[in-house]
Amino acid sequence: MQNLRFAELDIQGLLRRIEQELSSEFGKGQVCTTIPELQTVPGSQFGMAVATVNGDEFVIGAAETPFSIQSLSKVFVLEKVLQITGASLWERVGREPSGLPFNSLALLEIEGGVPRNPFINAGALVLTDHLAANHATAEKAVLQFVQSLSANDSIAINERVAKSEKETGGLNFALAHLLRSRKSIAGNVDQILDTYIRLCALEMSCLDLARAFTHLANNGVCPRSGQSVLPELDVRRVNALMLTCGLYDGVGNFAYRVGIPAKSGVGGGVVGVIPRVLSVAVWAPELDAQGNSLAGISALELFTKYSGWSIF
Amino acid sequence: MQNLRFAELDIQGLLRRIEQELSSEFGKGQVCTTIPELQTVPGSQFGMAVATVNGDEFVIGAAETPFSIQSLSKVFVLEKVLQITGASLWERVGREPSGLPFNSLALLEIEGGVPRNPFINAGALVLTDHLAANHATAEKAVLQFVQSLSANDSIAINERVAKSEKETGGLNFALAHLLRSRKSIAGNVDQILDTYIRLCALEMSCLDLARAFTHLANNGVCPRSGQSVLPELDVRRVNALMLTCGLYDGVGNFAYRVGIPAKSGVGGGVVGVIPRVLSVAVWAPELDAQGNSLAGISALELFTKYSGWSIF
Amino acid sequence: MQNLRFAELDIQGLLRRIEQELSSEFGKGQVCTTIPELQTVPGSQFGMAVATVNGDEFVIGAAETPFSIQSLSKVFVLEKVLQITGASLWERVGREPSGLPFNSLALLEIEGGVPRNPFINAGALVLTDHLAANHATAEKAVLQFVQSLSANDSIAINERVAKSEKETGGLNFALAHLLRSRKSIAGNVDQILDTYIRLCALEMSCLDLARAFTHLANNGVCPRSGQSVLPELDVRRVNALMLTCGLYDGVGNFAYRVGIPAKSGVGGGVVGVIPRVLSVAVWAPELDAQGNSLAGISALELFTKYSGWSIF
Amino acid sequence: MQNLRFAELDIQGLLRRIEQELSSEFGKGQVCTTIPELQTVPGSQFGMAVATVNGDEFVIGAAETPFSIQSLSKVFVLEKVLQITGASLWERVGREPSGLPFNSLALLEIEGGVPRNPFINAGALVLTDHLAANHATAEKAVLQFVQSLSANDSIAINERVAKSEKETGGLNFALAHLLRSRKSIAGNVDQILDTYIRLCALEMSCLDLARAFTHLANNGVCPRSGQSVLPELDVRRVNALMLTCGLYDGVGNFAYRVGIPAKSGVGGGVVGVIPRVLSVAVWAPELDAQGNSLAGISALELFTKYSGWSIF
Repeated sequence: MQNLRFAELDIQGLLRRIEQELSSEFGKGQVCTTIPELQTVPGSQFGMAVATVNGDEFVIGAAETPFSIQSLSKVFVLEKVLQITGASLWERVGREPSGLPFNSLALLEIEGGVPRNPFINAGALVLTDHLAANHATAEKAVLQFVQSLSANDSIAINERVAKSEKETGGLNFALAHLLRSRKSIAGNVDQILDTYIRLCALEMSCLDLARAFTHLANNGVCPRSGQSVLPELDVRRVNALMLTCGLYDGVGNFAYRVGIPAKSGVGGGVVGVIPRVLSVAVWAPELDAQGNSLAGISALELFTKYSGWSIF
Repeated sequence: MQNLRFAELDIQGLLRRIEQELSSEFGKGQVCTTIPELQTVPGSQFGMAVATVNGDEFVIGAAETPFSIQSLSKVFVLEKVLQITGASLWERVGREPSGLPFNSLALLEIEGGVPRNPFINAGALVLTDHLAANHATAEKAVLQFVQSLSANDSIAINERVAKSEKETGGLNFALAHLLRSRKSIAGNVDQILDTYIRLCALEMSCLDLARAFTHLANNGVCPRSGQSVLPELDVRRVNALMLTCGLYDGVGNFAYRVGIPAKSGVGGGVVGVIPRVLSVAVWAPELDAQGNSLAGISALELFTKYSGWSIF
Repeated sequence: MQNLRFAELDIQGLLRRIEQELSSEFGKGQVCTTIPELQTVPGSQFGMAVATVNGDEFVIGAAETPFSIQSLSKVFVLEKVLQITGASLWERVGREPSGLPFNSLALLEIEGGVPRNPFINAGALVLTDHLAANHATAEKAVLQFVQSLSANDSIAINERVAKSEKETGGLNFALAHLLRSRKSIAGNVDQILDTYIRLCALEMSCLDLARAFTHLANNGVCPRSGQSVLPELDVRRVNALMLTCGLYDGVGNFAYRVGIPAKSGVGGGVVGVIPRVLSVAVWAPELDAQGNSLAGISALELFTKYSGWSIF
Repeated sequence: MQNLRFAELDIQGLLRRIEQELSSEFGKGQVCTTIPELQTVPGSQFGMAVATVNGDEFVIGAAETPFSIQSLSKVFVLEKVLQITGASLWERVGREPSGLPFNSLALLEIEGGVPRNPFINAGALVLTDHLAANHATAEKAVLQFVQSLSANDSIAINERVAKSEKETGGLNFALAHLLRSRKSIAGNVDQILDTYIRLCALEMSCLDLARAFTHLANNGVCPRSGQSVLPELDVRRVNALMLTCGLYDGVGNFAYRVGIPAKSGVGGGVVGVIPRVLSVAVWAPELDAQGNSLAGISALELFTKYSGWSIF
């Protein structure tokens, strides 16, 4: 596999080049329309942050502006569940790409209530239930986990976004009630929806996110604190799950175009991992038809194209 | 990314260890039942071959026994199409995992006749049509391509297997006629089915296959001949497609358990690629419920577990 | 079409014969398991009532024991909606058999939130919303309608059954939230579910039901009160809807075996209409795999077989 | 049920009125596009014929012009199969409306190769196979059956239409191969397709068709020959199947609007049955989105509206 070429590669210059080339991408997509509170976010913002396994950090644009992480929270929930309950979660959720949009009820129904993977909404709802059954304060556990990974105690839930999603998020309510009717969720539906929605409403910046993902590029060890977050094998598995299931029904194209494990959220964030090298977070609120950040994906494509980094 | 540790790692010893540990895996699966001629193959055979980017080769068991490559041929067809027609193929076939069994007509129908990816049967039929439209003798072109990659002119089509599949393969006939009715196939249905089925009936050994895939671990260059088979970017993309679409509806579990790009066939072969290190081919005819080689997948899991090689 | 042969046909004798022949049908099905409160109902009960367009009535067995009408309420809701809002309801719900179980979310999703017909749960939820939007007290309106049709003021909602269904009926909650997320329901989800579930929990006897359906056999006129309930054309249409959509995914077999418009409920009730002759209600709590009363359908089959009455 | 009112009702005057009112319906639909040979048929033609159980006949327009009966042949195949093999056919084909377009492969697949009913293409292919397995010359048997019912020996297969459909009918080929792969068809796929397509290419006039269906209105007895074609119970069942499955995914709307058992074909023919009264055939080649004759359905709607005849 490739040598690290930090010395040779000017990451800061690379970020500048990407920012320049991206300018034509704005105005083509649409800011998330399903959550009213997110519709007010100006669409043409852009930020990007890199955190290397050596501890170096690089930022450009609005890299320190907090935004709604939405589905990116699913990675943190999965990691926390792995920490607390280990492999028992795989009795309740699968590991296959869904082949369908992230909020598909049809697929779920066909398969009797077992969600395809932890990164579709149904899967994350089941994980939230699993976490709540094994931990008294699931929300707090994940929040502290994230604050610790990012070394930023000010990370918090945006109450307006949570409220907005609760008022309009009918589909997640449908999913949760369906899962309950199939006995895939054991706990109280309203409480699980509350925890799920509140964790989606976490606000973090690109720099926070790059930091929070660095251990996934570093065999499970946070390069800043030196602490082991997850065993090496689990880290590989989380990366594998991101590659096959992290971008909804756009995973195949993303693997083809960009070639690294990544997870996206409808707030416009995308975070990628280059194993044994670095983590990289982008934010650009305009989304494509699959609900992935349009400029965010282009930025990561340019990043791997110009750096030559790819897992393939 | 990881350093090459050929010096440190005793690959031959690793293969011996895998062969030993696998003994308990036999008798659990079932030799391919859909093609009568393949049902006669003894189930407990096992072979494995490794070909490194340095040109080294390692074999164990029945690594030089030719077997029916079946869907492994889809990789060669894809590569040949990329060589001859470039990216134009992506107008006719997608790049997303199907989320359904490899021979699903339901999925195909829902999406109006555009197959999800080149590695499901429908996708390979469209590629065969694409190749036939751009090359006078599609079958011969792929055969020579394979012989050249494996440096083995004796590689040939098993006529009995081809005949057997033609007599029983109703589902591929249904797929081809459906694709024709959706104008997804332009050529003569019977000719395309003939070419498709004959290329599935190619017989190669593990060693042939490991050699034929080495360029995918070596940025597109065959380490033996020094010739460039595909540009580096195309190689990454073929690897990405194998990872997200190469094992039918078992891709997610394979990525999770094994963590490398690979392609399987119902003849019991599986070939994996560890980028910038080596290619590895296994053969064990008994299949799991998804149609993947049971012991073959276990062998690759042990291979990456003991070597520490993973793209994640 | 057939002559009325009331004089010749001994309806009371026919009911006795049916009761006798049915004895072997009990113990083969299962009392409704989805609503805990209904599980306590003894399975081997049987009642049957006939109300002719001449005003004659015939009963046998437990014909005057009230039971949970469940989906039979969907006919009353449809009629009330037709009375109040006329054809405008057809902008919100279709008129085609679903081809799938009554509680299918998959189908609903595929079709963008427009339920197939008024007799699947999704369709009845939309009608309940439609009624609530056009009438201040939807529940009271339907209750009074039913009491008036049956000439029985003591007909009431079983509060324990309503409570039981609310506590367990996750699937209806999922459906309602899904419909809300597709804008197919405009009102408050919890209120609509409450009205829907309470009307399903109405308790009526076979005699009540036979009386309440007689106008559908009598061109819309109640033979007892002489009042016109619905115009003749609407009556034909309600009968047509019952024939094509009234027995979930068992409509085709029922039309083939029994040959009259009918509607069933998971409480074990089935009510049939022989246009221009009579209405007939049966109750037998054990259900078949489609959720239809096992002995109830057999009773109606014997009824049309021995009487020779059929719309075909 | 209704009294016969032949004396009172001026059927010839009714046909004239319908012809007049229909004039605005032409030009709104599209002549069948899936079979090239049928595309050349002028779209604005119209014919209608009535044959009563008393033996009276009424015609208007092009009622004696032969046209391609297409799916109307499915009724004749079903009747012939019932005559020869009795109820054994129901082990191979269901009796439920499909809820999906007539040529759906998705549905078929979900249900493991057992077609939903005899009037979708898959069901008719299975019946053709069933007939061929029980009768040496299936095609000839059906042809003679039709000629006898219509008292017209000149009824024949249009060889150009059969050839045209064979050259383009990819979807039926896909269906047949799929059914073969599921063991739902036992015979030779090409021969069954040949018989199926040739019987679809039968040409009959409205008068031929009205005559050929009269026994379905007359308890199974042909009023002209006095011969019993099918037992009374089978006749009711064929009528029930037409009502629930005879108009593809438009059965519910047709039952609602028109209210009689009927079968349509993409050649623009529709034949209805008013039990114990008459049969009525219409021809108007322009089709609606479901593949049913646009003016044909309107003609039948006016016919039942003005006559007051309805099975509901």
